[in-house]
Parts: sequence; structure tokens; C-alpha cells
Amino acid sequence: MTEQTHVNASDLSLEEEASLTSGSDSWHVQGVPEQGLEGYMITDGPYGLRKAKDSASNDVYGSVPATCFPPTAGLASSWNPELAHQVGQAMGEECIQEKVAVILGPGVNIKRSPLGGRNFEYWSEDPVLTGHQAAELVNGVQSEGIGTSVKHFAANNQETERLRASSDVDERTLREIYLSAFEYIVKNAKPWTFMCAYNRLNGVFGSENKRLLTDILRDEWGFDGIVMSDWGAVHNRAAALNAGLNLEMPPSGTDNEIVEAVKAGEVSKEQLDKMAQGMIDLIEKARPAMSREGFRYDVEAHNQVARRAAQESVVLLKNEDSILPLRQGEKVAVIGEFARTPRYQGGGSSHITPTMVTTALDAFEHAGMEVDFAPGFTLDGAQQDEALTQEALQVAKQADKIILFMGLPEDAESEGFDRTSLDLPAKQVELLQKVSEVNPNTIVVLSNGSVVSLTEWLPQAKAVLETWLLGQAGGLAIVDLLTGQSTPSGKLAQTIPVHLDDDPTVMNFPGDEGHVRYGEGVYVGYRYYDTFKKPVLFPFGFGLSYASFEITDVSVEKTGKNAVRVSATVTNTSQVDGAQTVQVYVAPGKAKVSRPSHELKAFSKVFLKAGESQSVSMDLNERDFAYWSRAMNDWHVEAGTYGIEVATSSRDIVKSVDVTLEGDGKHFRLNSESSMGEWEEDPIGGPIMSKKIEELEAAGVHLPDNPNTMVLFRTMPLGTVLMFSGADGRTVTKELLDAYEAALSK
Amino acid sequence: MTEQTHVNASDLSLEEEASLTSGSDSWHVQGVPEQGLEGYMITDGPYGLRKAKDSASNDVYGSVPATCFPPTAGLASSWNPELAHQVGQAMGEECIQEKVAVILGPGVNIKRSPLGGRNFEYWSEDPVLTGHQAAELVNGVQSEGIGTSVKHFAANNQETERLRASSDVDERTLREIYLSAFEYIVKNAKPWTFMCAYNRLNGVFGSENKRLLTDILRDEWGFDGIVMSDWGAVHNRAAALNAGLNLEMPPSGTDNEIVEAVKAGEVSKEQLDKMAQGMIDLIEKARPAMSREGFRYDVEAHNQVARRAAQESVVLLKNEDSILPLRQGEKVAVIGEFARTPRYQGGGSSHITPTMVTTALDAFEHAGMEVDFAPGFTLDGAQQDEALTQEALQVAKQADKIILFMGLPEDAESEGFDRTSLDLPAKQVELLQKVSEVNPNTIVVLSNGSVVSLTEWLPQAKAVLETWLLGQAGGLAIVDLLTGQSTPSGKLAQTIPVHLDDDPTVMNFPGDEGHVRYGEGVYVGYRYYDTFKKPVLFPFGFGLSYASFEITDVSVEKTGKNAVRVSATVTNTSQVDGAQTVQVYVAPGKAKVSRPSHELKAFSKVFLKAGESQSVSMDLNERDFAYWSRAMNDWHVEAGTYGIEVATSSRDIVKSVDVTLEGDGKHFRLNSESSMGEWEEDPIGGPIMSKKIEELEAAGVHLPDNPNTMVLFRTMPLGTVLMFSGADGRTVTKELLDAYEAALSK
Repeated sequence: MTEQTHVNASDLSLEEEASLTSGSDSWHVQGVPEQGLEGYMITDGPYGLRKAKDSASNDVYGSVPATCFPPTAGLASSWNPELAHQVGQAMGEECIQEKVAVILGPGVNIKRSPLGGRNFEYWSEDPVLTGHQAAELVNGVQSEGIGTSVKHFAANNQETERLRASSDVDERTLREIYLSAFEYIVKNAKPWTFMCAYNRLNGVFGSENKRLLTDILRDEWGFDGIVMSDWGAVHNRAAALNAGLNLEMPPSGTDNEIVEAVKAGEVSKEQLDKMAQGMIDLIEKARPAMSREGFRYDVEAHNQVARRAAQESVVLLKNEDSILPLRQGEKVAVIGEFARTPRYQGGGSSHITPTMVTTALDAFEHAGMEVDFAPGFTLDGAQQDEALTQEALQVAKQADKIILFMGLPEDAESEGFDRTSLDLPAKQVELLQKVSEVNPNTIVVLSNGSVVSLTEWLPQAKAVLETWLLGQAGGLAIVDLLTGQSTPSGKLAQTIPVHLDDDPTVMNFPGDEGHVRYGEGVYVGYRYYDTFKKPVLFPFGFGLSYASFEITDVSVEKTGKNAVRVSATVTNTSQVDGAQTVQVYVAPGKAKVSRPSHELKAFSKVFLKAGESQSVSMDLNERDFAYWSRAMNDWHVEAGTYGIEVATSSRDIVKSVDVTLEGDGKHFRLNSESSMGEWEEDPIGGPIMSKKIEELEAAGVHLPDNPNTMVLFRTMPLGTVLMFSGADGRTVTKELLDAYEAALSK
Repeated sequence: MTEQTHVNASDLSLEEEASLTSGSDSWHVQGVPEQGLEGYMITDGPYGLRKAKDSASNDVYGSVPATCFPPTAGLASSWNPELAHQVGQAMGEECIQEKVAVILGPGVNIKRSPLGGRNFEYWSEDPVLTGHQAAELVNGVQSEGIGTSVKHFAANNQETERLRASSDVDERTLREIYLSAFEYIVKNAKPWTFMCAYNRLNGVFGSENKRLLTDILRDEWGFDGIVMSDWGAVHNRAAALNAGLNLEMPPSGTDNEIVEAVKAGEVSKEQLDKMAQGMIDLIEKARPAMSREGFRYDVEAHNQVARRAAQESVVLLKNEDSILPLRQGEKVAVIGEFARTPRYQGGGSSHITPTMVTTALDAFEHAGMEVDFAPGFTLDGAQQDEALTQEALQVAKQADKIILFMGLPEDAESEGFDRTSLDLPAKQVELLQKVSEVNPNTIVVLSNGSVVSLTEWLPQAKAVLETWLLGQAGGLAIVDLLTGQSTPSGKLAQTIPVHLDDDPTVMNFPGDEGHVRYGEGVYVGYRYYDTFKKPVLFPFGFGLSYASFEITDVSVEKTGKNAVRVSATVTNTSQVDGAQTVQVYVAPGKAKVSRPSHELKAFSKVFLKAGESQSVSMDLNERDFAYWSRAMNDWHVEAGTYGIEVATSSRDIVKSVDVTLEGDGKHFRLNSESSMGEWEEDPIGGPIMSKKIEELEAAGVHLPDNPNTMVLFRTMPLGTVLMFSGADGRTVTKELLDAYEAALSK
């Protein structure tokens, strides 16, 4: 490795600069060899490396082997940022070996609807859980000197019309729900790159959205990396460059348009310098890792990381009569093709060629357990084969316990399309019905990248392990959990509804004719279900364990005007090692705007040996109490009382403690549209108005005596009321506002 | 009456023209005496005349006596446009006597939320029911030579921040839900005037919305009357005039601004001519009726119109064991202050000084029935008086049947504020509990202008008469119905939900910080509950009778490409005279956009003597099958199968008949954003694309072989797919689109 000097974009020719703003092929950034800038490879994540064998190929399904970690929907359920960090580190190592400078992930879009086609690639319906987990994944990768690309920026929450639909989202919803995980990651993990979304946001393409890419991302949040396009998301090179997009991928062969746009003054030289410099900085940042020669990651060690991650990704939803874990000597029957042909990852650009795959059947064998197996059903769309049913029932009758592997087949969910139903294939559900009739000790192991409906069949399962998609070591992890080698500790990162039609997006997903109204506003997921007291099948944050826990000594201490420290003691009250995730929700009291009844603001996963105790504390800062005020165009914390809830799910509140905050001191100002009632209530404006009205009444202006009429009048702008009463409303209002502003500035 | 010649606005001075565009006082338009134009009075409706005693007064609660007809929420439940016509005629007569040229109503805004403060003044959650009823009211008034003012145009669906909030509504929702009743009335009743709304629509004040007041109202729908402001809704005279607002009310004394704006070229002389001419035409149109001298309407006859209207406005919700009607000789106890102090109208600008009021107690006496009475509770907010409870229970114990009058007190609903709960006062509900315990034969008579919750207490009432607000003759009508002199025939014009939180607007009512997101889109009322199969307490269109009916011989006949005639026979199968309302809903099949599962399109109220039969038929036209296409910016009927449902409520479908329509022939065109999948599916575009791809493949461009990758690619714009495959996507797309357009125009 030779000594390198820093390259300034402004020293390059226009053509060289322009060339830096698109790739050299589908998977490489453009270098400038004369300047010692190498065109490194960048390639898909987000839960493992998808490096095309042939970088000129447009096929996403052929790639070199890499560890397939649990897809994001799984890893999210771990509620363990440290684990995400470890996975990130491992992915970083694989990038070093494969000479990949940037891995394209994590995907941090919010799961707005359970039908979203890429939900398996995303974390949660909640931005705090998303942000905390994803930031540590980024930190993990980048600790290896490899870059990440946080995607898809922003409001990219469905696959229908994905390259053109406009997500129509109001500013408050955008800030509170759809941007805040991105913001958290920028501020806490400094990602090297961002990837813009395909879709439009309020009519503007992600690749051309200056407000997003420059004003908010860079100027507000302080992002100092580069923004690349999603593959094929650029429609106008110059517009994209002006908006703050550094890199078009894949190249469309239109660098000359940039050169000409600069010459024509449509793009400033300064802007091109800035965008090209970003690319140079990226290359220079990646250089140390890309210059390491001969590095080989430990394939088996990474498989073990994938296994641990998979263990923590599984959510135990039901465990009647403590049927799990399996006991020594029990005769176990395994039913379901998934035990032999696991569904462990999703489809589309995230699709990995794994280094190895251990099926559950393999894993039982590794664990030295003999199990009977019947496939039960096929994974294709064919009608149920009666012979498979009979075989399964035969096996079921002879066993003490049945492990029935159910799930969504591969073609049920993928990048590229949204689902239209939450249902599992009917033949699987029918098989469960029959199996549980012949043997009620039926345990269901679910494999699915996004939420499926359990409502119809839940009573027929004594236990349910929701394993999401678990990556290549999923079979090992499932057997670890079934046998009690490991204790389930996952918590739901999304609500499981009773019915799809209960979902708050049901009226507005996936939109019509190129527009998606985000009609539910901030009421996504549990924010809706909990605020409006709707029944759910399993709430956000829910998950069982083989161990049992107690949370005591909950205390909330003020650490600032609008900040608190929340503390509690967690005790494992069982004979089994395990982990409990303590969740802190903030419940705003009376608020000026409609707010969710509570929102997750912090969490802490505590691993405890049998009988062990540990105290945890979490800090909440001003932002954790704020809502986005459209009127102030800023975050705002109202003075008042807030509930601090310590919980084990969004519906299992252990204790709620009220704290009184001073608020941030920002306030709404009276203006020419303020109603008479608002003037009356304003501590400064009220007296000013009263005095003036007295004067006016003395001069013959007369407000109605009838209190019912005054009810109407108080809702009207003061000027209108005065006009109705014979005064010059406009002039008087101006006079009053001047007096008000003068009093405020005193 | 002297001969009058027609006045041309353009012959007037600028100052005279400007003066015509605002009133002369709060309740008079400005005349031009020199031209023989008189400044007639215009005054509030909408369900009776509210003519201020003193036209300079700003108090809405002092007015000359007039018949108080059932407020709109009641009349709506009659589902009888002919009845609305009779009420309109009667109101017209009262206007003639009182020298009022225009009565300010009907209010036709949709009841978006059950909490809307003016719901008692509006008709329904459904635009067809609203439009049909209101159009006939307009026709009735105008048949007397008196004008109406259809209000509040548009999307004025709440009282919170009513003078400034922006209703943020997408175009399709606006067209299908919030504009279509207005449109129907314009086309079927030619109202003389419209009144603009206070609020903003998508950011633009109602008084300044040229798209609404000119482009849609006049140019699209053919309205030829004048538009006046709601009282105090004008913020900028010139902007309002340019938008198409003829008249500012009340006058703000700023006519000079108009003169100056014309001189400065900010308002064209042509526009001023047009707006002023509208005012002249209005005055000239009113002249014949205003010139009638000495006309007196028949006060008692109008009271009888009010009584008949009230009878039809009542909805019988429950009638267990046929407890109603009362039988001769039964000992009846009447409980509840409302029987003595009726709640019969709402608060605000609609508040009428009635010509007389008959309470239910009076009416029992008139009917020659002796009843025991106990007030049971007071109408104020005071705690329950135990003595009143004891008195009521005493009375209840001694009676065969109890009539318990419950309802919302006057201060619970008014123009000026929205409700925050559906609950009746707790003391009334508690009294019902106690009364029904001592005497289960308890019949509840409800008085409330907008929906109240019955969920908690319904089991304790053997019968429920929902009387809404019934106007001055409500007491008579209630006793008519209780005694079986008249048979209930009202049907719900709005859904009664199980819980307020079930309502589709619950996330977005009444909005925040000056904005109301109409997040539920077209899914208002039953369109939501029925489409998403949500439980309701009583569905839209529901109402019981003392009679029973059968609907048979349902047939649907095609009368055009996209038109049908629906016929049925209705038979009264009982010994009691009564009326059944046959409702026709259209259920679109598979549609390109998300559509409600069914929508009311026609209805017919059939009065039948005991044992009588009658056949009815209703015509549906192309528009009845259409949705508003944002992409086409037009109404669109897709070819396909539609269900025609003949029903007695939105959930009681007697029979559904499928018809196949040809569609309107309009179609979506492929464009540069069309996906590869859309090209494939297009009968003309598909072959054009396939041929080109073959050529490109021969020339070395290569699409992926992997079908999973092709799933992704089909969702992308064709140009993007081609670019990924090494072609010049943009140029090829252009070439293909040219070929496609050429093929289309052949």
C-alpha cells in the first residue's frame, strides 16, 4: 500500500468529476486511476453480502457465498443492539475478504402495513426500536472500516407502484414516524452512505428531493457521507445532483449531461465539487480496508454468530402447560416440509447464497435426537396430497409431542410485490387442525418474513414459536430453543392483529393511481391499537420465555428540565437462565395535538441466570417527550405531566410513574387568525384584548349579551367578532397584535 | 308593482357595482334604488326562518316567530324527498310573509364524524341521501319564488378551528363524498345561491377558492346563481371576487377596495360585471315574491306539516316483544324532563323562535291519555337529585309501561364546537338502569341532534325511538307514534357505531394545528364499516316499523351500456299501515382502485296499507357506477360485473343481482413510467414491446433468465429494466411510446 494524498474534487476536470457521480458498472463506484482513486465495489445487504459473481450481470440471484444472518425482521425481534453490532462486524469482515467497500444496508423503513412486501428486510413498526438496532448494526460494520448504506430514504413502505407512487405524508407524521430512525442513525452511527428511495414523497422523487437529501439529512442532522440512488431511481441527473445525490447507480451512461448542465449553469460548479468530493472521500475512507490483502473470515465462527442471532430472534408466542422446552426421553414427531426445506430468507436484492444451511432436521440429528418426520405438505401451490396428510397423522399419533413447521412459502413474499392477505396456505392450517385432533400436544414453529394471521388456528397449537426468517443457522437455533439449550428471548417488533382489517392502514394501503395517502398519520401499529383500545392478538413488545421475571424498584428521577432517568430491578424468579427486555414508554398527558397514548422511547435487554437480579437504568431526554409541531416547524415539548411506563410489552405495563416537565418554553403566538377565545386564554393577550373591548364598548361597539351567541363568537377570529359588532376588525386586530408583540418582547 | 326593466351591471358605475358585492347590513343585500333594485332580506334557515327582529343586531338568538320544522338530522331520516319538498314549500311561504328573499339553507355537508358540532343541521353520512333530500327541499322553497342558499361549500365538516382549519382532502374523496351532493342539487334543483364555507380546503379559504366557486361549480356543473360568503368568511375582497364570490356578508365596509382593485387591474371589469350581474339577477328573480303584499301563511297548517315531517323523522331502533305501540287501557308513566321541556332544535345560527311548541306531555293530554309524570332528572349539569330518582321509581313501579325521555341537553351540541364524546349524561343512563330494574317495560325516547352511544344501556330498554330533534311539533309526533296513530317509518341516515373509537375518522378528527387530514378518504360511515366488516350497533338505512314487509320480484334490466332499471314488489304483510324504504346499493366488483364494498345509489319510500302491494322501480345511470379517477381527472366506469343490491338497510340485503357493464370506454394510457408488467398486460402495448425486446436481444441486450429476478423487473418502468439490461432505456421507451400512440390512433 503506497502513501496516498488527499484528492480535491475541484482539482479534477469537469468530466472526471461528473464520472465520479455515477458507477462504472452495476456494482462499482467509478475511480479516477490517474489520481490513485480506485473504483471499489459496493453491493447488496442488508443481512449478509450479496456480491454478484459477475459484476456486469443484472441477475440478483447469482452471488458468491456469504453468511446469511437472520433477515432483519428476525434480528429486530432480538431487541438487542449489541447483537446487531456483532452481526455488523461479521458482515464487515466478509466485505473485507470480498473487497466490498460498502454493504447496502440496513433498510430502516417503518413497517407501515403488515402487507408490505419488503417487511422481512425492515425492522419494526416503531422508529425507536428500528433506530437503536440499526445504528448498532451500522456501528458494527463500520468498526471494520467498511461502509453501510442506510436505505431507503424515505417513506418507502410498500412495493406496489414502488418506482413511481407518491407517499403523501404530512410533515409531523414524516418527522415522528418515517424520518426519526434515519435521524437517530445519522446522529449515533455516522453512516458512510445513504440510499435514496425509488418512490416519490409528496410528489417529489426520492432522487430529486433536496429537502430530504440536503436540507434535512445534511443541514439539520449533520450527515457527512454520500447519498447514492437506489438502482434505477434517477430520472434526471442534474436535478438529482442539485438535490444532493452524489451517485447514480447503476450508471446510465449520461455523465455528459452533468458536464453540460454545469456549462449551462443548471448545476453549479460548487454543487458538482461537493458531490464529487463526497465520492472521493468515500473511496479514501474505504481504502485501508480495501487494501488489506489475504484476509479470510472464519466461516464457521460467522455461522455461530448467525446461530446466536437466530436464537434471540425467535419470539415464543404461546406455551400452554409449559409444553416447551421438550423433555428428555419424549418421543418427538416433526411434521412440515419446512423442517427439511427451510424458509430462511426473503426474495429480491437481499437474496444471499449462504455458506451453509442447517435444516431443523439436520439440527435434531446434530443434537443427537431421533425424531420421526413427515413432510405433511408441499411448498408449492398444489392441492393437498391426501397421502401426505395420512402420513403426517400416522406420525402424529405415535408421538408424545408434535413439532409442526408452518410458514409462508418463498413465493409468498419478496421485494417487488406486496401481500394481499395475512393467511398461511390453507392446506397447512387444515393439516394443523387434523394433527392437533389426533395429538393435542402440537407445537407450531412458524417461518415467515412478515406478520401472518394466527387468529383462526391459535387454539389448536399448544405452543407457537414465531421464528420469522432466521438465516442459514435457523435450524440450529430452533432446535436449541425447542430443547431448552437456549431460552427464547425475542419480543415482537410489530403488532400481530386479530384481523388484517383492524390495521390502521387498511383504508390506504397500497393506495391508488400513483398516490398513497398516509391517512393514519402517526397512528401506525401499536400507536393505533393502544390509543384506540383495539384488541390485538399479540401486542408490540410481547414475547414469552421459559424463565420468569419480576420487575421491581421502578423509579423515575428528574435529570433536567425535560429529562429523566428510569431505573428498575429485574429478577429472574425461575430455575432457568433467560433474558427479559425492559421497555420504557412515554405517555403524554393532555396535549395540544392528538398524540398516541404512549410511545416506546427506550429499552434494555437483561440477561439473567436463574435467580439472578440486576438493576437497569435508561435515560430519556427532551426529544423523547416531544412531538413535531407543524405550527412551530420544530420539535416541541409541552409543559405538563407525562407518564413513564415500565413495561414488558406495549400492553403489559409493570408500573407507570408520573413526572412533571417544565416544557421547552416555546409557545404559540397569537396572530391575525387567533380566535376571540384564544385571546381570552392567552395570559398576555387576554388583558390587552379586554382593555380594548372596554374602550370599544364605551365608544358604542356592542358585543352580544346572549351567552349562547358568545359561544359562537369565541370560536371566530377576534377581528371577525369585532366586525360583526360594528368595529373595524382588521385595524383593531393589527393594533392589538402590535401591543401583544410589544408586551412579549419586554 | 310597476313594470321593471332588466338592469345590466355594466351600465352601473364602478362604485354601484362594487356596492352590490356586499350587503347593506347583516341581513340585507344592497340594492340600487336609482335602478329600481331593492335590497331584499336574506336570513338563516335551514329548517325554518330565523329572521332577526333587528337586522342590525349581531345576536342570533332573537328572531321573529316561525315554524320550527324538524332539524335536518331528523328530516333526513324520513328518506322522503317529497316530504322535504312540502317542508320547503312551507318555508317558502313563511319567507313571502316575512319578506325574506333567500333562506340560508339547506346545509348539505356530509357528516364525516359523529362528533361534528353541526351534524343536527346536516343530512347524512351519504351523499346520495343528502343530495336527493336536499334537492327537493330546494325545489320546494323555490317553487314559491324564494331562493335557497346551499351551504357550506365545501368540506366544512367540523366546528373546531372552523374559521381557519384546512380540510386536507384528496380529489377523489372530494368528488365522491364531499362534492357530489352539491353537484346533484345544482343539476336537479338549480338553487339560486350557494354559500361558501369558512374553512380552507387544501390550504385555500372557501371564499377565495376559484377552483370550487368557478371552475367546478359554474363551469363544470352549470350553476347560474350567486355565491355568498358565510358570515365573516371573506379575508380579501378582491381575491374573493376573482374566485367567483358575488357577495360578502355581512358587509365589512370595504367596497372601495373593489373599486381600487379594478382600477389597479387586480380584478378585471368583466369579473366585476359578472359578479354584480349575479346580484342584480338575484334581486330581479326575487322581485315577484317580494312584491306580494299581505300574504299570511297558515300557522296551524304549517304546524301540521311540521308534525307529519316529525312523524317520518323518527327511527324505531328496537321494539322487543312488540312493546310498542301502546295499547288502550295500559297505565303509562312518562319519565324525563324532556317530556315537559323538549329538546327540539339545535343551537347557533339555525336557532328559531317557534310559532308554538307542543311537548309530549301536552300531546298526551291532547290525545286524551292520562299519564303519570316524573321529571327524573334536570337538564343542567348538576349532580342527580336523589329525590327525583325516588319519585321516578315510584311512578315506574305503578305503571304498565314506562316512557323514558332521554337525550342531549341543549348545551351539549351547537354550532361553534364539536362534541368529544357520544355519551348521554351519566345521570340519565343511571336512571334508566334503576327504572328498568323496577319495571322492565321501559321504552326510551331519545332526543339528540347527532349520534349518541346506546351500547351501554340498550339491553335495559325494551324499545327505543330515536327522534333526533323534531321541531316544534315533535311532542305531537312522538305521541302519534307511541300510540300507533302513526307508524314509525324513519331509517338511519347515519351509522350508530358500537364505540366512538370504531369510527374511521378517529385518528383524524378534528385535526391539529390548523389542518384536518381526511385520512379515511372515501371510507366515511357505512362505506368503512361495511367494507371492512366492522360491527356496528345499528347500520345505515336501518329502521323498524309496527308493520312488516316483504320484498319480492327483484329484477334488474339493462337500459343502456352502463345503465339499469331496478324493480321490486313491496308487500305490507301485516295488519298495520306503514312504509318501507327500498334501498339500492351498487357493489363494484374487482376494481382498479380501492372502492367501498357498496354504495347507496337510489331509494324509494313506499307507503302501504295493511296487506297492500306495490311495485317500485329505480333507474341507475352511468354515474352511479363511476369512481373519480385521479389519473383521468374524470369519472370513470370500468367494464365488468357490478352487484345491484336491493336492501332495507346497508346490512339487510334482500337480494343482489349481478350485471355486466361495458364500461365507459375510457382507458389508462401507457406512459414513460409504465412498468414492464403493465406493458405486457396492455393489449396494444404488449406486442409492440415484445417485438422490440426480441430485436434488442438479437442485438445483445439480455434480460435475466431467472424468473424470480423477472418478478422484480416487471414492477419497474420498462426503461429502467432496459437500462439494467444494457440498452438505452430512455430512447427505447420513447420509440415504443410513439409506436403505441400511433397504434392507438389507428
